[in-house]
Amino acid sequence: MPDRLDLLRAHLQKMNLDALLISSLSHLRYLFSFSGSSGIALVTKDDCYLVTDNRYLEQVKTEVKNAKILIAIRSLFTPLKKENIISDKMHIGFEAAHLTFERFAHLHKTFPATQLIDTENVLESIVMSKQPDELEKTRQACRIACNIFPEILPFIKPGVGENEIAAEISYRFRMAGAEKEAFDIIVASGWRSALPHGIASDKKMQYGEFIVLDFGCTYQGFNSDITRTVALGEPNPELKKMYNAVKRANELARAAVQPEMSAVELDAVARDFFRELGYEKEFNHSLGHGLGIDVHSLPRIGPKSNDKIAIGSIITIEPGVYKSELGGVRIEDDLYIGKDHTELLTPLDRDLLILE
Amino acid sequence: MPDRLDLLRAHLQKMNLDALLISSLSHLRYLFSFSGSSGIALVTKDDCYLVTDNRYLEQVKTEVKNAKILIAIRSLFTPLKKENIISDKMHIGFEAAHLTFERFAHLHKTFPATQLIDTENVLESIVMSKQPDELEKTRQACRIACNIFPEILPFIKPGVGENEIAAEISYRFRMAGAEKEAFDIIVASGWRSALPHGIASDKKMQYGEFIVLDFGCTYQGFNSDITRTVALGEPNPELKKMYNAVKRANELARAAVQPEMSAVELDAVARDFFRELGYEKEFNHSLGHGLGIDVHSLPRIGPKSNDKIAIGSIITIEPGVYKSELGGVRIEDDLYIGKDHTELLTPLDRDLLILE
Repeated sequence: MPDRLDLLRAHLQKMNLDALLISSLSHLRYLFSFSGSSGIALVTKDDCYLVTDNRYLEQVKTEVKNAKILIAIRSLFTPLKKENIISDKMHIGFEAAHLTFERFAHLHKTFPATQLIDTENVLESIVMSKQPDELEKTRQACRIACNIFPEILPFIKPGVGENEIAAEISYRFRMAGAEKEAFDIIVASGWRSALPHGIASDKKMQYGEFIVLDFGCTYQGFNSDITRTVALGEPNPELKKMYNAVKRANELARAAVQPEMSAVELDAVARDFFRELGYEKEFNHSLGHGLGIDVHSLPRIGPKSNDKIAIGSIITIEPGVYKSELGGVRIEDDLYIGKDHTELLTPLDRDLLILE
Repeated sequence: MPDRLDLLRAHLQKMNLDALLISSLSHLRYLFSFSGSSGIALVTKDDCYLVTDNRYLEQVKTEVKNAKILIAIRSLFTPLKKENIISDKMHIGFEAAHLTFERFAHLHKTFPATQLIDTENVLESIVMSKQPDELEKTRQACRIACNIFPEILPFIKPGVGENEIAAEISYRFRMAGAEKEAFDIIVASGWRSALPHGIASDKKMQYGEFIVLDFGCTYQGFNSDITRTVALGEPNPELKKMYNAVKRANELARAAVQPEMSAVELDAVARDFFRELGYEKEFNHSLGHGLGIDVHSLPRIGPKSNDKIAIGSIITIEPGVYKSELGGVRIEDDLYIGKDHTELLTPLDRDLLILE
């Protein structure tokens, strides 16, 4: 299997670029195992350079084996100038989605004669296709998330704060060997469950409420992202109806997944089903997204996506229905898109759990 | 006291701007209480507009009381075009440090005739001066961090992983009412303590090691940031010497703080002291930084800063000495710079703790 830098260089050649300037921190970790919070890299046809600052002098030496290391005193771009690594004649791509305007302006000022070309999704498209070790790390991130779920259920009781549940989840992630939560943990109860992104608050949970739990962890740089919705005490019949609809939409969408199908088509499976039930407006987000070193990656799976469900990608399927004030339901799973077989990475029960 | 938007509008007038386009999420939270992960705002002379997407439809209505809310279907800039809020004649400032090149290009494409002016540190300078409620929230974030420190010490034992200590800290933050940790928790033991940014790993702690613990939490949007270094068992004499030097540098720098002094001068207090002891090279980072809605804020406190220690700001003082392979020491406190009085927000003991 070609290594990550070979794949990147093949892309550069296609785009007629002499080098790519990389400023996304997750891409720096992906390519060079660098886990610091400040750095850029330049990948040329023959060389790799990683620039960071003095705080990471020791760390970068330990972590990075496949790039020449440069330490910046002030601007991260200066060492590339001083060492004559970027010349006027070069065509340098940069990551338009990961370079701020301020840093772009500084880059341009440092290399006024160099052609700076904005690129889109170069590494994102390489990262999308998972290599065997990357799939295995994602599997482990999913396993950890699935395993802790039954352990946190006993904490879901009337009068307990959403934040306390988030504390229990986060604690168990780390104790199970994850680096940390992959994103701000969502614990949204009652009226807050109608917020698709209701990050755990100090609201106390009560009987009769639905609780949406959306959580995932980072394991060796790869992420899981799973949602289950549970009831605390017997729920309102409308909430139950919403639950069954979402559960069915999740099943239908998972069953419909085919490698290389269009993302719009997959999204429509859930969206059309909700439309039939009169829940079209209540499903107010995309069906899912790619998952990898960044939680929200390619492919995008929504009604306006131009992407395909690429072979080798890992995706989420997360239909949801939300009714203002009443509450919401979301059920989210992670799938690996193999050539011949789609693998469910989050085999956690989806029957409605009514906690007493 | 003038409110935040009044202060911002006074800045806009000085800069001859008709409006500021805000893309930093912490600034959106600061000005409009919006806690979502996708949004922009436009503050004009008379109005405020906040644009987000459908996922935040419910949430934005609950959170945001002081801006007109617009929901974007695709690009966050489109509603500002459709509603004719930005006209060709306007001079619009944008946050160069918080807008990606990609989004800038999109903004320019959406408003090709409008003057788009890059601005630097507009809200950062407003945020720097803490209002009474902001100081009180930071005090509480500091209190939580100080209170949990003695509770986690019993977990520091040979054979326990750094990550487990991070789990205990993070858990206690949330249980004490914090939203979450303010940044990736550093637990760096033994040789890893020589990494100024040694985020907790799966390394097990051992007797004879120094352990640097750098942690802080977010409380109602405001952050704490504190470091203490402890010994597990009797330490190497050189490590002890380093400890005493850092403790003294921390004391000297805190004692030297004067409102409106230059940041370079404050940094030099610690740097000159370390130079006398031959530790100049081993203190390889800045003395500190401003602290607020973002953990690293203005003023910058390093040897190349142009900033002043502004009245009303909250700063960290964090001298450190690091020796490759042997280990490192850092002791960090948070200070509020009042007009007549500097308040220590992290009154946690600094004597060397030798854990048995």
